[in-house]
Amino acid sequence: MPATRKKPLKKFGRRKTDGRLSAPPSYGAELIRLCAEAKEASHVLAASSAGLRNRALSAMAAALEKNRDDILFKNEIDVEAGRRAGLSAALLDRLALTPRRVTDMAQGLREIAALPDPLGEVVGDWERPNGIKVQKVRVPLGVVAMIYEARPNVTVDAAGLCLKSGNAVILRGGKEAVDSNTALAHILKAALAGVGLPAALVQLVDTTDRSVIRDLVRMDKFVDLAIPRGGEEMVNAIREMATVPVLAHGKGLCALYVDKEADLDMAEALAVNAKVQRPGVCNAMETLLVHRDVAARFLPRLVAQYVEAGVKIHGDAETRTIGGAAVLPAQPKDFDTEFLGLEAAVKVVGSLDEAVAHINLHGSHHSDAIVTRSAEAARAFLARVDSAAVFHNVSTRLHDGSAFGLGSEMGISTQKLHARGTMGVPELTTTKYIVCGSGQIRD
Amino acid sequence: MPATRKKPLKKFGRRKTDGRLSAPPSYGAELIRLCAEAKEASHVLAASSAGLRNRALSAMAAALEKNRDDILFKNEIDVEAGRRAGLSAALLDRLALTPRRVTDMAQGLREIAALPDPLGEVVGDWERPNGIKVQKVRVPLGVVAMIYEARPNVTVDAAGLCLKSGNAVILRGGKEAVDSNTALAHILKAALAGVGLPAALVQLVDTTDRSVIRDLVRMDKFVDLAIPRGGEEMVNAIREMATVPVLAHGKGLCALYVDKEADLDMAEALAVNAKVQRPGVCNAMETLLVHRDVAARFLPRLVAQYVEAGVKIHGDAETRTIGGAAVLPAQPKDFDTEFLGLEAAVKVVGSLDEAVAHINLHGSHHSDAIVTRSAEAARAFLARVDSAAVFHNVSTRLHDGSAFGLGSEMGISTQKLHARGTMGVPELTTTKYIVCGSGQIRD
Repeated sequence: MPATRKKPLKKFGRRKTDGRLSAPPSYGAELIRLCAEAKEASHVLAASSAGLRNRALSAMAAALEKNRDDILFKNEIDVEAGRRAGLSAALLDRLALTPRRVTDMAQGLREIAALPDPLGEVVGDWERPNGIKVQKVRVPLGVVAMIYEARPNVTVDAAGLCLKSGNAVILRGGKEAVDSNTALAHILKAALAGVGLPAALVQLVDTTDRSVIRDLVRMDKFVDLAIPRGGEEMVNAIREMATVPVLAHGKGLCALYVDKEADLDMAEALAVNAKVQRPGVCNAMETLLVHRDVAARFLPRLVAQYVEAGVKIHGDAETRTIGGAAVLPAQPKDFDTEFLGLEAAVKVVGSLDEAVAHINLHGSHHSDAIVTRSAEAARAFLARVDSAAVFHNVSTRLHDGSAFGLGSEMGISTQKLHARGTMGVPELTTTKYIVCGSGQIRD
Repeated sequence: MPATRKKPLKKFGRRKTDGRLSAPPSYGAELIRLCAEAKEASHVLAASSAGLRNRALSAMAAALEKNRDDILFKNEIDVEAGRRAGLSAALLDRLALTPRRVTDMAQGLREIAALPDPLGEVVGDWERPNGIKVQKVRVPLGVVAMIYEARPNVTVDAAGLCLKSGNAVILRGGKEAVDSNTALAHILKAALAGVGLPAALVQLVDTTDRSVIRDLVRMDKFVDLAIPRGGEEMVNAIREMATVPVLAHGKGLCALYVDKEADLDMAEALAVNAKVQRPGVCNAMETLLVHRDVAARFLPRLVAQYVEAGVKIHGDAETRTIGGAAVLPAQPKDFDTEFLGLEAAVKVVGSLDEAVAHINLHGSHHSDAIVTRSAEAARAFLARVDSAAVFHNVSTRLHDGSAFGLGSEMGISTQKLHARGTMGVPELTTTKYIVCGSGQIRD
């Protein structure tokens, strides 16, 4: 690793124990310094050109590739510590980097550089009878705090998206990835400094002390937005503690409704894809609703497919009557559960109305789909299901920034304020009014 | 009062004491009912036509005028109770209704009806290589909780703006206005029912028990947005308690900077207007910054004007040297104070940079102005001051929905998320993705 080595870890007063970082007694003051520096740096970035921001993204990409071996070495420390700490195979997989994954992170930064620049866009421009000119112009948010879990690639994606949108970012990744993230952040900082931008545009909170998160999401003076990205419990805890605005990437309890006028071949393909293709992600299907008129024809073939794919089925009484012994009796809580695995809750409904009401009550307003040949049924479902994305004859798995053609994404927002659904570069900006006149006053 | 009388106050199990309402022991359950009803009603409204929503607004306006005497009678109860409780003259003025004010409220609803309809707008519409069609469509938020203080006209404005934007509203006004608000809400509800819309689109939380506010802003299942509108302390308390998203209408600590290249006649007119015309509101100026090069010429005339207008001046050492005995010595806290009255903090600065740094550090990011003839100085100030609205040669008092030509406003947002600055009908909506295909899955 290059120049960044010269910034000794010790300067923050941290102590190394067992190769893991531990919190110094005074991280509060350190956090204020990190945040204040980020705010100051954000003002410099806001005044920079799109060309410079894109050069910085390219420099960051090149630096990742140049320092690949060092990144992999630091990541191996995290993975080994995780293995000793008994992390699950799934978590270790998310934590582990490979040469290919480092190249993908660099490539992701180059793709972000190629996206249109969102800043300076004049959203509105008009003149008032008294002669004042009002403009509404797109500007950066300022400082974004990103709180996430074990995946080190989020460190790079978030830094890249924030830089593109003119924001400083304060990163707080999971403690499992602290050595990987420290290495990545140092490389990104050096690359920023190399093109003449403040290194403080990328700040890493590198204590593993959890209490720092509470302080971070209450830094109203310095932090303009907190984005928690992780499990439901983490997101809820941050929503509870935060006083800065929060963009919650909540759980995905997604449903697929097979209408009485569905093409059953299509319904089968969609129900399998939405559940099985990658069951651990937020846009995977958890609940399958089937119209009574087609249940006897649809459910036997679907159950056979699910059994073959290893899906555990929790069915209501009608589903069990039709589906047989392969269907376990559903408990009420099964319809409120994000399984995040090869499990599904299945229910027979009497009408589209019942399906819509079930989804609005039990779903998480993330991604929900209808399969039907009826344009009228589709229209009613799409209008009345109150979710970030609604699908007609399309798998819920397609709710994604790249599937929608929006480039990289910061995550999928399940709240209605500011950004709803897949969230990319434009959602990391705000607007300001610029008003010019010649001495106009209020009468 | 008409039909609404038939809904006896007793049905919520409330007790009247001294003509004031007090909380029943079980308001929690009542609040859940109010919120759940509002959510259900919001789904009905989301499926309504713009024509019906506008008819409802007209019917609400007519009902206010028809029931004017009853409204004034109930308002007199509040005013009398306020007088006995020793409310300030300013608060009593905000609380009191007159025949003219009732007419203005009705007229406000008719103006909202005349605004463009925001719903159903297709914000984006594109097709992907795999054949899926993606639309981003403007839809209502759902349920908005409005928490405000003594002004009964906010009850009507908020109900009107929420109805226009397709949202149900839950109103929690100040306890001083509870009888006025109860009368207004009953009239609005009857008007809604009269055009065939659910009365539960306008819900009034009519207990004076403050603890209900905490419960209201934690109703994530039913409430999509909380808007606190009031003093800094109230807004901060709600931000602290809330788990639902909050749109904060925070304090206005606004500054005017007189540049070295300012037209000093214009600067004087703007500094007087911004401070004196209506000092108790959020877009009034609190801090005046004057460039050293013009301080000796500008400050004596300005101080004379302020003294004549009764403005108490807190000046730094240089201001006192130039301004003389009329200038009190400024304490550091004076530059962090929203006076909301005839008081101003005045400071001499050495450069535009110093002015910008002062405003970004001490201001509340609301409305800040520069007076200058220099296009370059204006450009730097407008770009670098990080506020919801920035002004060049215009009084900060013009930051306002009607001054900007946007019709009625819900308030002025000082946060960056979702809505920044003056906030009207479009800011009460969100978007959803509607995705249509022919069986597309994720590979």
